[in-house]
Order: sequence, then C-alpha cells, then structure tokens
Amino acid sequence: MQTDIKLFTPGPTHVPEQVRLRLAQPLIYHRSPEFRQILQRVEKNLQYIFQTEQNVYVLTSSGTAAMEAVIANLLSSDDQALVIEAGKFGARWSELCMAYGVPVTSHKLPWGRALQPDELVGLLQAKNDFRAVFLTHCETSTGVAIDLPVLAKVIHQYSAALVIVDGISSVGALPLKMREWGLDAVVSAAQKGFMCPPGLSFVACSPRAEQAMIATNRPRYYFDLRKARQALEHNDTPFTPAISLLLGLDEALQMMCTEGLERIWQRHHRLAQATRATMIGLNLQLFAEQPADVVTVVRLPAALQDKDLIGQLKNRGFIIAGGQGKLKGQIFRIAHLGACDEQDLAELIAALATVLRESGWACQPDAVVSTFRQQLTAGR
Amino acid sequence: MQTDIKLFTPGPTHVPEQVRLRLAQPLIYHRSPEFRQILQRVEKNLQYIFQTEQNVYVLTSSGTAAMEAVIANLLSSDDQALVIEAGKFGARWSELCMAYGVPVTSHKLPWGRALQPDELVGLLQAKNDFRAVFLTHCETSTGVAIDLPVLAKVIHQYSAALVIVDGISSVGALPLKMREWGLDAVVSAAQKGFMCPPGLSFVACSPRAEQAMIATNRPRYYFDLRKARQALEHNDTPFTPAISLLLGLDEALQMMCTEGLERIWQRHHRLAQATRATMIGLNLQLFAEQPADVVTVVRLPAALQDKDLIGQLKNRGFIIAGGQGKLKGQIFRIAHLGACDEQDLAELIAALATVLRESGWACQPDAVVSTFRQQLTAGR
Repeated sequence: MQTDIKLFTPGPTHVPEQVRLRLAQPLIYHRSPEFRQILQRVEKNLQYIFQTEQNVYVLTSSGTAAMEAVIANLLSSDDQALVIEAGKFGARWSELCMAYGVPVTSHKLPWGRALQPDELVGLLQAKNDFRAVFLTHCETSTGVAIDLPVLAKVIHQYSAALVIVDGISSVGALPLKMREWGLDAVVSAAQKGFMCPPGLSFVACSPRAEQAMIATNRPRYYFDLRKARQALEHNDTPFTPAISLLLGLDEALQMMCTEGLERIWQRHHRLAQATRATMIGLNLQLFAEQPADVVTVVRLPAALQDKDLIGQLKNRGFIIAGGQGKLKGQIFRIAHLGACDEQDLAELIAALATVLRESGWACQPDAVVSTFRQQLTAGR
Repeated sequence: MQTDIKLFTPGPTHVPEQVRLRLAQPLIYHRSPEFRQILQRVEKNLQYIFQTEQNVYVLTSSGTAAMEAVIANLLSSDDQALVIEAGKFGARWSELCMAYGVPVTSHKLPWGRALQPDELVGLLQAKNDFRAVFLTHCETSTGVAIDLPVLAKVIHQYSAALVIVDGISSVGALPLKMREWGLDAVVSAAQKGFMCPPGLSFVACSPRAEQAMIATNRPRYYFDLRKARQALEHNDTPFTPAISLLLGLDEALQMMCTEGLERIWQRHHRLAQATRATMIGLNLQLFAEQPADVVTVVRLPAALQDKDLIGQLKNRGFIIAGGQGKLKGQIFRIAHLGACDEQDLAELIAALATVLRESGWACQPDAVVSTFRQQLTAGR
C-alpha cells in the first residue's frame, strides 16, 4: 500500500483510512432494505451538509456530469443564461450551455478576480430576461471564492432567474446555506469536501428548481432528475449506483456530522489563513483577489518557474497541483480541503520551505513552520 | 465486515477480496504518470476482453449511461433505429431512442424468447434504411442469450446498419469477439463479468462507429466520446475518473488476463450447464428459450409463489434475484457470473434445495448437490 504519499490536490483530496476500509467491504445488493437504509441516512446527512430540506440527488458520475444534469433538467432551449466566468470551471458552465444550445451571456472576468455585487447589478439591469445565473462558489483553478450570499440576494432582487451554483469544491468546506441564501441548484462532488474518492456527484434543488425540472423537455435519461426523484421517494436509485462509493460516502458523512458543519468550516478557515500568512511570509504572492478557504493559489515568481517545485515536492511524498489552462507553469495550488489537519499541512509547509531554499529562494524552513504553527494557534 | 453474505445477483456480482483491497488503497492523483500507466494497462486489457484493437472508452457511470452515450454519439435525430426488445434491457434501448427523439422501430418478442436469424432477415427486408440495429447479447431480465455472431452477420448482409450491442452482462463471461463478428459498438459495465463494484461502464467502438461519432451534432458533454478519444491518446480521461474503482478494475482485469478469456468462457459455460441440469432435475422449468451462461432464470411454480424463496435464501446468507417488471413474483434468477466458482455455487444449490424442501417441494438436498457436482465434472 502506498501510505507515504499525501495528496494536497484540490480533488481528489486525501481519503481517510476509515472511509477507504468501508470501500473494501463486501458489496450489498442495492435492491435490498439494508441498502435503502444506507441511502436514507446518506440523503438525510447530505441535506444537513447542503443546509436544505429539499432533495439532494446522488449521481454516479464526476462533478461535471452534475453540472450537465442541471442544464439538461432545468433549462429549455430558449431560456437565456448568464454565466459568470473567471476561471476554468466558470468556463465549463458556458461550454455546457453552448453544447446544449442554451443562449448564453458569458461575463468574463480576468482569472483571479471575484465578481462584485454592483457589477452583477449592472449585468441584470442591462438584460432582464435571464432564466438562470450560473455562479462558481469556489473557482478551483484560481483559488477565488465569491461572496455567495450577497450575490444570490442581488440576483433575487433584480431578476426572476434561478441561482445555480457550482459548489463542487466548496460544499462541506466553505459556509454554504442553500435554503437561507435562496440557492436554486447546488452541485458538488464526493472527492472534495466530502473526503471520498471521485465517482459520485450531487445536485440539490430548491422547490423552484423542482418546478423547472417538470417544465423542460430536453433529451435526457441517465441524468433525468425526475427519475431520481421518483426513486428517492422509495430510498432507491433509478440505475445501479456505485455501491462501494456510497458505502464510503455514508462513512464520510457520519464523520462530518460528528465533527459538525460549523467546526468543519472553522477548521478550513484556520488552515487557509495560516497557509496564506505563511506564503506571504515567504515573500510569495497570492493569486486570488478573494482567496477561498479550500485552496491557496500562489504565483510562481520568475526565479522559480524552471525549478519544478511540484516535482521536487512529489519526490518528498507531497502532491500539490500546478496551474490549469492558461495558468500552466505560472502558479501552484495547495489544497487544505476535506480530510486535512494541522499536522499534515505543517509537514507539507516544511517540505515546501526546504524545496524553496534548495531552489535558491531565501527562507528558513524552521522559521517558516513555526510561523505557520503560530498562525494556527492565533486562529483558534 | 459482512463476509457471510454471498451475492448471486446478476450485478452487482461477487467482488473478490483482492479487488476490494485495491479499492481501499490511498488515492493516486489522476493527472500523474503513475495513474496514466494504470490507465494504459487497463485499456490494453479491456481491448483483449472485448477482442478489439479499437478504443474502449471507460465512463464513470452505470451501464445505462454507456448505452445513452452510444445513442448520443452515434445517431443523429433523423437516423432510423431498429431495436430488438425481448425484456427489460431491450426495452431500455427503445426508451433511450425515444428520449433522444430517434425514430425507432421496436420489434417486441415475448419475454423469454430469442430473436431468430430469419426473423431478423424479414425485418431488414421490410425496411432497408436502418442506421443502427440494437441488440441485447444477454437479456439479464429473462436469462436469454442471442446467437450474436449469426445475427451480426445477417445485419451486415442485409443492411448498412451499425450493429450495436448491449454486452453489459455478457462481456468477459460469454464468448464475444468484437472485431471478428463485426460489432460496431459494444457497451458493458464493471459490476458483471468484470468482478468489480458498479460505477464504471465501457463503450468499445469499431472504425465505423468512430466515423459516426464525428458526424452527429447532438448535445452532449460528459458523454462526448470525442473528448474521451482525445484524452485517451494521452492515457488520460476528460473528467476526474473514479480513481478507486479504476484501481479495482486494473486488479480484476489482471486476474482475468491470468485466467485467460477462453477459460473464463468455459468456466461460465460449465457452471451454467450444471445449474440448468440441476434445476431441471428439481422438476423446475427454465424461463429462457436460449439460456445464457451467465444467469439461470427459473419459473416459480404456482405452489411456490407465496413461499418467499428469495427471503428464505437471504436468511441463509445467499442473495439471488427475483423477476423485474412484468416478471415480478414469477421467476427467480441465479447468476453464475464473474467471480463465481464451483464451491460457491454448490453451497447455494444446497441451500436452495433445503429451502425448497422446507417449502413443500419434493426433493432431497444431498442428492441435488451430488447431481450438481456430477454435472460439473461431466462438463470438464
């Protein structure tokens, strides 16, 4: 077993041993009372994590498919969509709309920026017939978090549009209150805040979204959330689910409920703040205008761009991520997301400081780690 | 751990411990050379199992989604389709065509029957513009296997249609030679012959199917096999794959390659023959006209319909399946599919005979088991 490698990638994230052991259990037949009981518990716990009383649909797929399911189920071909695009995953909403022939206005911001409320007011005043506004809560490619409750409020105030949120790397990590904030559809995936392997994704729908689901007649079958809803009434799934992954999710959700959502959010905030302060202390620059508490994105100074920091860290047993798309080679990304604790992160910070010094960057690894630990203590 | 329950359901099937332990390994980052190497080996082994040199695409989804991907990628909205429907899964091809607005001729046979070649000739002569003919190699709901090589030959002889095969419960269990038999698209899923948990599905495409993929412009994104093909060129996947399930699949495929395809087919045939002979010896009637070597479907005599045989077997630790759709309460189904061996099946047969006797059916459990074992020996 490869127990020495630690993942600090923003998905997949580290999967606790307790969850992995559950994956290895002999399979349960999915059309059985035992499995229905598990599905029922999973659903109840997902509602808690999404902060909703409405249905949370579980798909056997990656997060992208959950995004596609939202478009296939909630939008008709003549519905106008507004997409806020400030990174790779915002762009995915636009691509999906285009693939489905949905007339889309893509409001493109420079990568690293976060949409501001008055900018959104302007967009909604300029065109008032949007059926849906697509947001990315945490743009994993840039490390930016938007001010979701404020933006959702603006949308409801200035339009009748559905508020659709990519919460793939935020749900279960950043504060997100679906009902209270009036979010109509929130998608997420198991390999992020949920501490699970990839392969399961989630779509939570408001009553308005449930209504929209009935109105549209797009081609869909596997992603047909009406089938999922009908099955869920009997704690069932329309198609054979990824049973092992669901057992793992059941375990992870119970761990999350035991820790408690507020404390999970606080833990992410504390780890993120200490990581950011440490990067600044290292004379490195953060990439994000409004950094998300799940991933710290750091600009690679010119002097370090040819040093293969990521490869060097990998040789030491720590996996972090580089830039995607146009940010390739320009940034590195450290995720403190899901099952991440102080000790794990302190070890990574120590390794990073060592690698930086070896690459000619002025720093003292011991001092860096104690700064990190002081920041953590201050954040309590 | 629930180690006492044994699955004889036609998916999920029993997952060997070796595969389950691989699921529990710490995750590998999917954008890494280590993971690419695994994907490359998986692809090569899948080509062997499907008996093709062409691409076999792996989707994170159930088998139904692989069926949907075939329709979304290979058919345009004005393409005429012929579906042979003789059970629940044949009907799914028709439903999918209808969901996608594909003009479909559904040739419905009574459940339990198998399409005969001259019947197919008649269908193709009556209407000669089918773009695709959809077949179900093993109709899991009725236990029928069609004579696939003969029917595929007929299709090529009498039409230019693509031969599209649901091989979900047959690939890696029943003889299937994609290239040699001229099959254009074959879909399958991990939780059947592949001895894995559900959550991964496969689409193998002939060169003609690869051409068709380029011609159609249907809305698709997650299921877009053009994206999958592009990624596969770099041993990559277009979206985050179900990493743990892929590790399990890698293990299972290596086990399959070690056993060898011919021997796997023979094992399934031998187990199936002995099971069928035993059922007939028990004065029970087989449901299928042309029984498949992966699942034995038995009619429940009136005297046994209220005895809950399935529940009684479950209490003894053996899970078999009942009827689906219109066959609910009328049949039971014993799968000898995937990781099934003589000992497992002999134990099930013994338990079944005991339960039958306790339900008032005339039989001697010891004699039943020795008949079963004799049949197995005779089949060597």
